[in-house]
Amino acid sequence: MKIVVVGLGVIGGSFIMALKEAGYKDVYGIDVNEESLKKAKEKELIKEGFKDGKEIIKEADLIIISLYPRLVKQFILDNKENFKDGALITDATGVKKFFIEDILNILPNNIDFIFGHPMAGREKKGIDFASSQVFKGANYILTPISRNKPENLDLVEELVYKLGFKRVKRIAPEYHDEMIGFVSQLPHAIAVGLINSDVEGRETGNFIGDSYRDLTRIANINEDLWSELFLENKDNLLNSIDNFEIELDKIKNAIRNDDTQTLKELFIKSTKRREKL
Amino acid sequence: MKIVVVGLGVIGGSFIMALKEAGYKDVYGIDVNEESLKKAKEKELIKEGFKDGKEIIKEADLIIISLYPRLVKQFILDNKENFKDGALITDATGVKKFFIEDILNILPNNIDFIFGHPMAGREKKGIDFASSQVFKGANYILTPISRNKPENLDLVEELVYKLGFKRVKRIAPEYHDEMIGFVSQLPHAIAVGLINSDVEGRETGNFIGDSYRDLTRIANINEDLWSELFLENKDNLLNSIDNFEIELDKIKNAIRNDDTQTLKELFIKSTKRREKL
Repeated sequence: MKIVVVGLGVIGGSFIMALKEAGYKDVYGIDVNEESLKKAKEKELIKEGFKDGKEIIKEADLIIISLYPRLVKQFILDNKENFKDGALITDATGVKKFFIEDILNILPNNIDFIFGHPMAGREKKGIDFASSQVFKGANYILTPISRNKPENLDLVEELVYKLGFKRVKRIAPEYHDEMIGFVSQLPHAIAVGLINSDVEGRETGNFIGDSYRDLTRIANINEDLWSELFLENKDNLLNSIDNFEIELDKIKNAIRNDDTQTLKELFIKSTKRREKL
Repeated sequence: MKIVVVGLGVIGGSFIMALKEAGYKDVYGIDVNEESLKKAKEKELIKEGFKDGKEIIKEADLIIISLYPRLVKQFILDNKENFKDGALITDATGVKKFFIEDILNILPNNIDFIFGHPMAGREKKGIDFASSQVFKGANYILTPISRNKPENLDLVEELVYKLGFKRVKRIAPEYHDEMIGFVSQLPHAIAVGLINSDVEGRETGNFIGDSYRDLTRIANINEDLWSELFLENKDNLLNSIDNFEIELDKIKNAIRNDDTQTLKELFIKSTKRREKL
């Protein structure tokens, strides 16, 4: 099986590392950045790297795309004529519903696209921060669509287990986006809001403990990727933010009213939920 | 120097552990919980434990109080007549301005109270979760008042360095409360609001990655302690929540208006601030 990984950033780079460790040898890379291709080849993570991958795409059995959502669409458009008949494509995109609709509008009929999302990542971008370790023990989500062939879904699922993920779930794209809006995008919005709300010029660094450090870690955020992710999932994310603000306002009102009892009830509820995680 | 630690919970327990490691031997404990006293004595962290500490308080040169704010006040009231002339008291209370005012109203004139706050803690309560390790490398804040004797401030500062803290800052109580409202209480309010905003019955645990896990860790919260802390610092905390909501609303509006440019600017700002921490 000839595998081509498109986009050798932090996620694509982690894919080629995990593929190598899992024993896959017929692996190629495509990236606009020549430095990334060079690094991947020097470490023998790929057999060959391409800036324009037309030729290798023609031979690829499996294409793993690790690009920003908008660039995935562009990649499909650019290569419509190049895909091998029956080729299998999968992705790592963090939003699904509208993204899938867009892709299906342009995808050739003889190509099967298995939409996936590794629940693993890093704040930093680029192949230098790639690591097969982030995949180990992590969750993987597949969002099957009616035209997917069962054997191709199984193939991607098996591959993903070999790469170190511990659980693969198949769910509807709508449910994926609803959950991701809550467990991933909302925390990122909160972290950004928290650190941006600091008063300019205070010596905050002298006062912080683990809590502030933990809550702002993901405020270090790739602006190109996350602006796309937020806008592609806007209804779910806005809904999550609204629900969060309702809960925060409960706390705010309890404080304002010196309402110890309500505060305690909110804390007991949050403690129970956290312990259940 | 005879040292008495009052309240052998997670912080008081950590104090007696760190005191032992630092070579202090004349250390005693007071707690209403007999089990905690027994554990502390078995581990030779204290010479003797007392449920009612009147007698040992009469001999104490330094009293370290690790109780909830309200109980600190009660402890001072209960022991007004028992303190040794010239005794030194210090605390670990996470709020200062109103707390200090309350204490000064009831503190005997011949007692010096050095108000302090170790910037270290744990989600769990009780001596079983105490550890001298949480103090290592952490920040310590002292909030001196005019009646503190300089030599007593120096004594507490030196002690704290010996216990493993890496930086001791002396600041005004008002500034302490403003900063703590932002770096500690606001994150706790956010974590509680985030996890409480989850829709009941969803299988959230199957979807979470590090971001949700990090942002909700402190949603496991001691409801008695934190309801007191929030209400004792209500103006600062409400102000911090308001500022946070203003920033979150900027993100919300940018999403609603498909305003990629503003989103990116907010992300670039948060990334720069996080990297500077």
